Amino acid sequence: MGTPDRPLSRRRLLGGGALAVGGGVVGAGLTHAGAATDTPPATPPAQPLGTQTVPFFGAHQAGIDTPAQAHAVFLAFDLLDGVDRAALGRMMRLLTDDAARLTQGRPALADTEPELAVVPARLTVTFGFGPKVFAAAGVETQRPRSLEPLPAFPIDKLQPRWTGGDLLIQICADDPLTVTHTQRMLIKDTRAFGRLRWTQRGFRRGRGMQDDGVTQRNVMGQLDGTRNPPLGSPVFDGAVWVDSGPRWLHGGTTVVVRRIRAELETWDAADPTAKEFAVGRRLSDGAPLTGVAEHDEPDLTKTNELGFTVISESAHIARAHVRSDRQRIFRRPYNYDDAPAPDGTSDAGLIFAAYQRDIGSQFLPIQRNLAENDLLNDWITPIGSAVFAVPPGCREGEWVGQSLLG
Amino acid sequence: MGTPDRPLSRRRLLGGGALAVGGGVVGAGLTHAGAATDTPPATPPAQPLGTQTVPFFGAHQAGIDTPAQAHAVFLAFDLLDGVDRAALGRMMRLLTDDAARLTQGRPALADTEPELAVVPARLTVTFGFGPKVFAAAGVETQRPRSLEPLPAFPIDKLQPRWTGGDLLIQICADDPLTVTHTQRMLIKDTRAFGRLRWTQRGFRRGRGMQDDGVTQRNVMGQLDGTRNPPLGSPVFDGAVWVDSGPRWLHGGTTVVVRRIRAELETWDAADPTAKEFAVGRRLSDGAPLTGVAEHDEPDLTKTNELGFTVISESAHIARAHVRSDRQRIFRRPYNYDDAPAPDGTSDAGLIFAAYQRDIGSQFLPIQRNLAENDLLNDWITPIGSAVFAVPPGCREGEWVGQSLLG
Repeated sequence: MGTPDRPLSRRRLLGGGALAVGGGVVGAGLTHAGAATDTPPATPPAQPLGTQTVPFFGAHQAGIDTPAQAHAVFLAFDLLDGVDRAALGRMMRLLTDDAARLTQGRPALADTEPELAVVPARLTVTFGFGPKVFAAAGVETQRPRSLEPLPAFPIDKLQPRWTGGDLLIQICADDPLTVTHTQRMLIKDTRAFGRLRWTQRGFRRGRGMQDDGVTQRNVMGQLDGTRNPPLGSPVFDGAVWVDSGPRWLHGGTTVVVRRIRAELETWDAADPTAKEFAVGRRLSDGAPLTGVAEHDEPDLTKTNELGFTVISESAHIARAHVRSDRQRIFRRPYNYDDAPAPDGTSDAGLIFAAYQRDIGSQFLPIQRNLAENDLLNDWITPIGSAVFAVPPGCREGEWVGQSLLG
Repeated sequence: MGTPDRPLSRRRLLGGGALAVGGGVVGAGLTHAGAATDTPPATPPAQPLGTQTVPFFGAHQAGIDTPAQAHAVFLAFDLLDGVDRAALGRMMRLLTDDAARLTQGRPALADTEPELAVVPARLTVTFGFGPKVFAAAGVETQRPRSLEPLPAFPIDKLQPRWTGGDLLIQICADDPLTVTHTQRMLIKDTRAFGRLRWTQRGFRRGRGMQDDGVTQRNVMGQLDGTRNPPLGSPVFDGAVWVDSGPRWLHGGTTVVVRRIRAELETWDAADPTAKEFAVGRRLSDGAPLTGVAEHDEPDLTKTNELGFTVISESAHIARAHVRSDRQRIFRRPYNYDDAPAPDGTSDAGLIFAAYQRDIGSQFLPIQRNLAENDLLNDWITPIGSAVFAVPPGCREGEWVGQSLLG
């Protein structure tokens, strides 16, 4: 179906980049449930934040270039045996229809708790297809070449319960009960077609708790996402949206979902200098060790009086560095914090969701560099891994995945 | 230590009852981290919601008459063998000190992630003592008579992993990362004294998503808490704060924490009329079946044309009805939503936290009535249960529990 371009697409609305507003102020690209117009309001509304909506239809699926909402759940399903192209199409029609309703603050078609649908809170629903979907649908030639399970890395301790999956549903909203209700409604749509393989629920700082647009900290206290390409920028567009390879995916993207446990017991025992050396940034403000402010360009060649580089070659930011904007990835991570062990050991970390045009030429080289030698590896352990092709968005009356399955 | 009365106590600040403000507006009883004064600001501040703080010290512990924050975790610990009165005192000094700091947006004493401490987001920390603490501390005579595990009810399917415990730490904040950081810091304080028995993490609508003060819905879609005594009202004070029995607990309260699973598969299959009949209220707006608005007094004697009461004698609100304000309980529940089963069956429900002066004369009679005959029982299953005495608050320089253990 290519990349539809509606008169006022979500992407263009978001062109201004990250929102930079305090609680109660609405940024570009947001409309209010029940509002008659698609255009952003000129003045801050008096309505609660929960009424804000993100358009569902557009050139790209929402939930990628949407400023990250406070809460998310990532659901991965295994397709049942015999689910073919036609069945997948039926499922995606159901899911698209309900997602379109719920994101606009309207109940799902067969909503059993319609009272819970009235707080959209910038709800987005984003769908992805795992590597095995293509064979199941008889369209294996349409699989992006590098859409396959990541190779094993020495640092990995992958657990099957957090790994793989055929269908991804990413649900994000600023309200946790909205996520819960949406999850329940959409799982119902999948029941004839798949079984839930894993559920990963995560969070960031609550909406309105900090100024919108500030870089978030993860459970290790690090600023996380400083180097992200700005939303809606040419760099973002060039790194994230597919523009070559199988035609059906143009305007879409791919996502890698890694569950990365933070080894907080040993991290907390390390001294701040060692932590900053491992990351290559100051913990207090995220400035590179060669700079004074978070967004200063790291100088990877600068040396100290002993002749060593100030930022170690093994520091996380040195290992993650890429030379070309086209090689960059877009991180949209969420924290997780499950029940600690009886002795108090945390079960916390990051649901690392990374979007890029092409896993093989963007995510993989970075991940290889990091796995090979990153001082931070002492304190993080990948325990889950999954990859999905994320179809482009669709117009009203169409459904997500139609360009592949329709 | 009785009930200290500071010049401007949290309780008096909260006298106005529930906040009724939109996102970005500050209600009574809240101050901003770093603000020099204790008095509420006259005009809405421009600061993000995350800077709001609730005073830690006062006649009562915070987190009870505090308008419920969006996120909570309930932690229950078993004391290690040999932890006696002196050891308990040492633990409570540590916990009090760190809770006092963190709630005001300051790092804990040995904070390993001080960068995460800067968003208090109305953080409160509330401590409770389970039934076995009194024998361990050699103060068994100071145990409130009805502070003991609840009797078994026919509807219960209690699981040991959600039941019992010697020390309760209830952590509530409008920001989920603040809850995570506070949890980690306080668990560290307990390590020499206890082991974590259970962790229950829950949520309500996000702060600012709806107008403050509206009744929350639970995962079943029901308005939950309509009949709560208003915060700071004489009815609240008379129902919640202990004013008889062991002197050390005056100004404190007791809490029952029940984990109540919602049987959403069958609930969703029931028709709306059956659901409303079971509850005795309309699902859409929470009005009693004999009224037109949520807060209308239910008329339990009104009959229909067949001579039956409009609100069934077995309806939830009829069974939960009490005759005297002194018998009321104060519900401060949070939703939970854990990973669904592979077939999509939800694992969701309510962390039902109920506060009352006396479990024996308030909670128990209501629970007996409900367990005996409540139409709603078909769709809810208690799977966890614990009771705790909640000491009064303390002044700066004192520690929570000092009136019992000091």
